[in-house]
Amino acid sequence: MNESRDLPWDGLLTHVQLVTLAGDDGYGVIEDGALGWRDGVLRFAGPSSRLPGEPARLAHETLSGGGRWVTPGLIDCHTHTVFAGDRAGEFEQRLQGASYEDIARAGGGIVSTVRATRAASEDELLAQSLPRARALLADGVTTLEIKSGYGLDFDNERKMLRVARRIGQMLGITVRTTFLGAHALPPEFSGRPDDYIDAVCQWLPQLHAEGLVDAVDAFCERIGFDAAQTRRVFEAARALGLPVKLHADQLSDGDGAALVAEFGGLSADHVEYTSEAGVRAMARAGSVAVLLPGAFHVLRETRLPPLDAFRTHNVPMAVATDCNPGTAPLQSLRLAMSLACTHFRLTPQEALRGTTAHAARALGLNDRGRLCEGMRADFALWDITQPAQLAYWLGGNLMAGVYVGGQRVG
Amino acid sequence: MNESRDLPWDGLLTHVQLVTLAGDDGYGVIEDGALGWRDGVLRFAGPSSRLPGEPARLAHETLSGGGRWVTPGLIDCHTHTVFAGDRAGEFEQRLQGASYEDIARAGGGIVSTVRATRAASEDELLAQSLPRARALLADGVTTLEIKSGYGLDFDNERKMLRVARRIGQMLGITVRTTFLGAHALPPEFSGRPDDYIDAVCQWLPQLHAEGLVDAVDAFCERIGFDAAQTRRVFEAARALGLPVKLHADQLSDGDGAALVAEFGGLSADHVEYTSEAGVRAMARAGSVAVLLPGAFHVLRETRLPPLDAFRTHNVPMAVATDCNPGTAPLQSLRLAMSLACTHFRLTPQEALRGTTAHAARALGLNDRGRLCEGMRADFALWDITQPAQLAYWLGGNLMAGVYVGGQRVG
Ligand SMILES: [Zn+2]
Ligand SMILES: [Zn+2]
Repeated sequence: MNESRDLPWDGLLTHVQLVTLAGDDGYGVIEDGALGWRDGVLRFAGPSSRLPGEPARLAHETLSGGGRWVTPGLIDCHTHTVFAGDRAGEFEQRLQGASYEDIARAGGGIVSTVRATRAASEDELLAQSLPRARALLADGVTTLEIKSGYGLDFDNERKMLRVARRIGQMLGITVRTTFLGAHALPPEFSGRPDDYIDAVCQWLPQLHAEGLVDAVDAFCERIGFDAAQTRRVFEAARALGLPVKLHADQLSDGDGAALVAEFGGLSADHVEYTSEAGVRAMARAGSVAVLLPGAFHVLRETRLPPLDAFRTHNVPMAVATDCNPGTAPLQSLRLAMSLACTHFRLTPQEALRGTTAHAARALGLNDRGRLCEGMRADFALWDITQPAQLAYWLGGNLMAGVYVGGQRVG
Repeated sequence: MNESRDLPWDGLLTHVQLVTLAGDDGYGVIEDGALGWRDGVLRFAGPSSRLPGEPARLAHETLSGGGRWVTPGLIDCHTHTVFAGDRAGEFEQRLQGASYEDIARAGGGIVSTVRATRAASEDELLAQSLPRARALLADGVTTLEIKSGYGLDFDNERKMLRVARRIGQMLGITVRTTFLGAHALPPEFSGRPDDYIDAVCQWLPQLHAEGLVDAVDAFCERIGFDAAQTRRVFEAARALGLPVKLHADQLSDGDGAALVAEFGGLSADHVEYTSEAGVRAMARAGSVAVLLPGAFHVLRETRLPPLDAFRTHNVPMAVATDCNPGTAPLQSLRLAMSLACTHFRLTPQEALRGTTAHAARALGLNDRGRLCEGMRADFALWDITQPAQLAYWLGGNLMAGVYVGGQRVG
């Protein structure tokens, strides 16, 4: 790839303030820093004064960051970005006084998204979902988790996962797919949740064989699936060597955190009602707590996740958009950071770690989320004067460039 | 300007869904609509089927909207967009446990913005403020109110207002300037608020003579200026024929709404603590209630404005960003609409009316805020499938074009 093999790096970025997040604490700021990379991997992340030579003799391409700040590319570790249709009408009806029951009776709620997603062709589904992924990218996201869960039959779950993969290819970012067949009970299985879980467990190996599944998730809640059903899904995942995660303890304490920890899961997500025992189990298992302040905000919840317990027991906290049409119509990970600070009182640094280093861990990826030698050259340039601004501003365009593997993608 | 004077319009936009807001209620949707304009003013706003001829014989330039939705250009009727410096550090310190007193003792709070704004040259102040105005424009804003109030001396208040005017010229949008000398007591007048009000009342005619003042505002609050001081500022405005508005009843009921109504003011803004009597006074005076859900959100307030009283008494409700570095670091009017729906339970239609027709009224402008013949050709095209999506999505890029007086500006 290199014109001349005697230059050590493909690219070099200078004149930037690096937010490396290299240690366990603090931003890890390097003023007047530089990044050098080769084959998409960082070979240098440090102060310009320590560069091992003249820039022109180090890399084929040298960029000046003009004094801008650089963070690791943001990682949105929990989204439902792929769906068809529109739930803004329900949002409007609720504000006009309709109850959830009224809306369900009128065919609204998740079943309307399932209906629209099933009705859409793969290309239509892609066309509807791509602008949301582009919006996330435009705000600095270089790694994006996308769940299935609005198909709820083999063909349509497969279609969703294929669209997720295509989004990653089209935008040049990493998309991690999560099979969430156990998201809701489809109408054709009404009253037969165990039969539906049988079906989900049958689909999983087939979808996995097609390379469509990076992880497996379920919605474990009174209004979702119970612990025994979730366990069967997790066992099917384990049989294939697939990591698990869980929508856990959002609306009530269903011991979801402990369940996911028992399976050594990547993360328990939402976790507003997780108990101290659940937190301890997560700490032992190394599971990440994925905070989803968008749904908390939209649903006007008041029960806070056990933030101090997560801190005390060193459970890493990630922050994600949960981008979905029902409870979190949120297309900006920076906005999720802001909501995490305002509603959950996370510090801006915790919020940034939650969308970089800890989010990488929530996806089982140890090659990103920090700016250090050996990590991927995934980074974002920002027009800010201090890192706290990323969580401080609501809206606005702070982004000045997004790079994946050293290539500019946004 | 026209090459040939026999075509009636300069521009024609077809194949759009119009949200006209023409009546007092409802979106006023016209499906398969069209807009025609001449000299920056709408000459046609109706269904394509009623166009008085073939498009090519109607206008010099014809655009297809490709089925997109079109609203009036959004109007942000309360902002502090012009300031220098950065308060993200305070945001971070508060989340790390510092109290407001700690921060004030360390030189933070509004005085730090005053210090930075005074220290900046006019060009520096413009350079720091322009990206925020651009972000608002990128989300559909064609008319923007900008207040002074971080200069707090003649030269620096003047500098702020000049920068506001320059922003309007540079972006090709309407900027309405508001003199808010009575925003806070500057350190050099410490303990002498009445002397400071004397000075403010002296500066006003000079600033007005330079064409820098469209309206006059004050911060009437226990921690701001009292009713008697506010009244003196309003009397100085009245002597010049300038309309007034007020930061009223945000943190306590200071009878601010009644005071602004007494002066026939354009609007009372914030109004969380406004009493029923205040609402009635506003109704009689025709003053608009400007809701600022960004500050409510960031300050985690719980006291709601008297929304039902405003509805009952037909006090128009506007919604604005309040874009400012302390209590509302908010750079998107759509996001303010979303916060108004979530926190204040406005309907999406009320939120849209609050950022168009009612916001125009809050600025005393009767030539915009609706899509009707005779109104300015200020409009925004949106990639949405129904108007409620404007308030439903948090973040994302829904904007497909912004026009001011029929000219594309964003
Ligand atoms: Zn979710
Ligand atoms: Zn204000």
